[in-house]
Amino acid sequence: MKEYNEYLQLVKDAISNIRLPQQPAGLYDPIRYTLDCGGKRLRPVLTLAACQAMGKEPMTAIHQAIAIEMFHNFTLLHDDVMDNADVRRGRPTVHVKWNQETAILSGDAMLTTSTMLLAVKAGEHLAQALELFNGTAMNIYEGQQYDMDFEQRTDVTVEEYMEMIRLKTSVLLGCACAMGALMAGSPFETQVRFFDFGVNLGLAFQLQDDYLDTYGDPATFGKAIGGDILNDKKTWLLIMAMKEDESGEIASLLGHTDNPQEKIERVRAVYDRLNLPERIHELISAYIDSAIKNLDHLELGPEARAFFMDVALKSATRNK
Amino acid sequence: MKEYNEYLQLVKDAISNIRLPQQPAGLYDPIRYTLDCGGKRLRPVLTLAACQAMGKEPMTAIHQAIAIEMFHNFTLLHDDVMDNADVRRGRPTVHVKWNQETAILSGDAMLTTSTMLLAVKAGEHLAQALELFNGTAMNIYEGQQYDMDFEQRTDVTVEEYMEMIRLKTSVLLGCACAMGALMAGSPFETQVRFFDFGVNLGLAFQLQDDYLDTYGDPATFGKAIGGDILNDKKTWLLIMAMKEDESGEIASLLGHTDNPQEKIERVRAVYDRLNLPERIHELISAYIDSAIKNLDHLELGPEARAFFMDVALKSATRNK
Repeated sequence: MKEYNEYLQLVKDAISNIRLPQQPAGLYDPIRYTLDCGGKRLRPVLTLAACQAMGKEPMTAIHQAIAIEMFHNFTLLHDDVMDNADVRRGRPTVHVKWNQETAILSGDAMLTTSTMLLAVKAGEHLAQALELFNGTAMNIYEGQQYDMDFEQRTDVTVEEYMEMIRLKTSVLLGCACAMGALMAGSPFETQVRFFDFGVNLGLAFQLQDDYLDTYGDPATFGKAIGGDILNDKKTWLLIMAMKEDESGEIASLLGHTDNPQEKIERVRAVYDRLNLPERIHELISAYIDSAIKNLDHLELGPEARAFFMDVALKSATRNK
Repeated sequence: MKEYNEYLQLVKDAISNIRLPQQPAGLYDPIRYTLDCGGKRLRPVLTLAACQAMGKEPMTAIHQAIAIEMFHNFTLLHDDVMDNADVRRGRPTVHVKWNQETAILSGDAMLTTSTMLLAVKAGEHLAQALELFNGTAMNIYEGQQYDMDFEQRTDVTVEEYMEMIRLKTSVLLGCACAMGALMAGSPFETQVRFFDFGVNLGLAFQLQDDYLDTYGDPATFGKAIGGDILNDKKTWLLIMAMKEDESGEIASLLGHTDNPQEKIERVRAVYDRLNLPERIHELISAYIDSAIKNLDHLELGPEARAFFMDVALKSATRNK
């Protein structure tokens, strides 16, 4: 096994070797801009690591790894249009820097390009790789639709929320892990274990994201704290508070933005009173435990096990 | 070989048998609505006919045929968002009936679904079918980008215009024909001949579309005449007129919409003076001749030849 940063370097090199046409620039420049976003490239790193953990050279799965990263960046591009988000990782989003038509069309081209990459040197695994990839993509669209639906609803349950984040963000981590095992020629059962590991990791990751948006340190988190609260975003924290807060405080604060700082502090005080910071970390730990159980079933070598344990534990305790 | 309407019935049955999930309704209802648009289903009919012309049962290619129809409808859905079009085939477009977020996300799901359909029972042809399909998709995005770019330019040449419509609309007809031959197991050279037949057919088809938008009979054409003129759309007719009209009449009319009926009549008078209606039909005939030459090289049986000849000649002489 390699270190995280070594897999990352392989991914970076492969992304910079993707040759897109120069013309029409209006179509391809936004794709280059989007791919050039940096980021930790967690998904393709997981694909390469899973492939190596199953005994094959990590480069066996490199095209499938960057296909998943390309797909991930496509979803961010279109989500930013749908959410009307102006900034992504400190840079203007594509629909701001260019325009909305460009963002839609370049995103479509990224989706098709991701399928093209998936097929490169997939060999005998092509049909299964496509099935895994396309099935995951449909789940992600469903998750995004539920996320948009929830904005209009006040009765979202915590079960519905967990299912939404499973679809919207976790299955792609599952797909990334399973894809590496698939490309290594592992049996279906192994692929499923890797998939479940990734899904549990993804759920822990997203819950930690919810926590950091409210409780993170602005200096390390890299963006302003309290955005979810100000937008009344139905995260695990808010859904639990809406269900359990009997004082009426939460209900009275929803929809108001006249005093942002006060709103953040008052909502946070309710969360604290309900002990939600501690409870969300118990839940995160439970998902990490489930992820580790999946690892146990895989019976990996010590190096591979240590690698995936490390990714799981860092995701649960990250502060940025 | 079968009649056009018999292939059409196979396509209609297959489309109505596509089983999409019920939930989330916000994602899947717009897809059902889009697929339920009717239309002549020219592309999938060509796929089935090409498959049968090459000696296989047409149903051999049914999933690939409806994959192409699904893809075509996805492009119309996203194009309508980009062009801000309110009506498609007499019905409100998806972004009008629902909203823009829905139109983007449902379109993404249609694109992924089309790739899923393409893989169904593709067997040993999967890798080649994907390559043909994805390469065509990239061409179509490029064509759409050029079309948008041309709106901002006044120096578009007729060669650039022909390349744009080749990419935006013709290659998908080529892909539809070639896909049928591919699924029938025909050699690559045969696939290329079918592809070229479809491209030439598509160019003739699009030029006839340009002609009808200005010279069609509103009663049979099914929509108002003169829309391209009022929007200063750079069709073959306008590009030729901008190049050849030395009176300055065309230049003076661009950008003005205060008297629509007068504008249509005055632009049409310039087209008439330059003999453009006759010249565009000479060009259409030349593309149909090229399409027929492709048929000659294919050495089809008499029934198959008659079928494709009929489609080509009807496309060139249609009045709706």
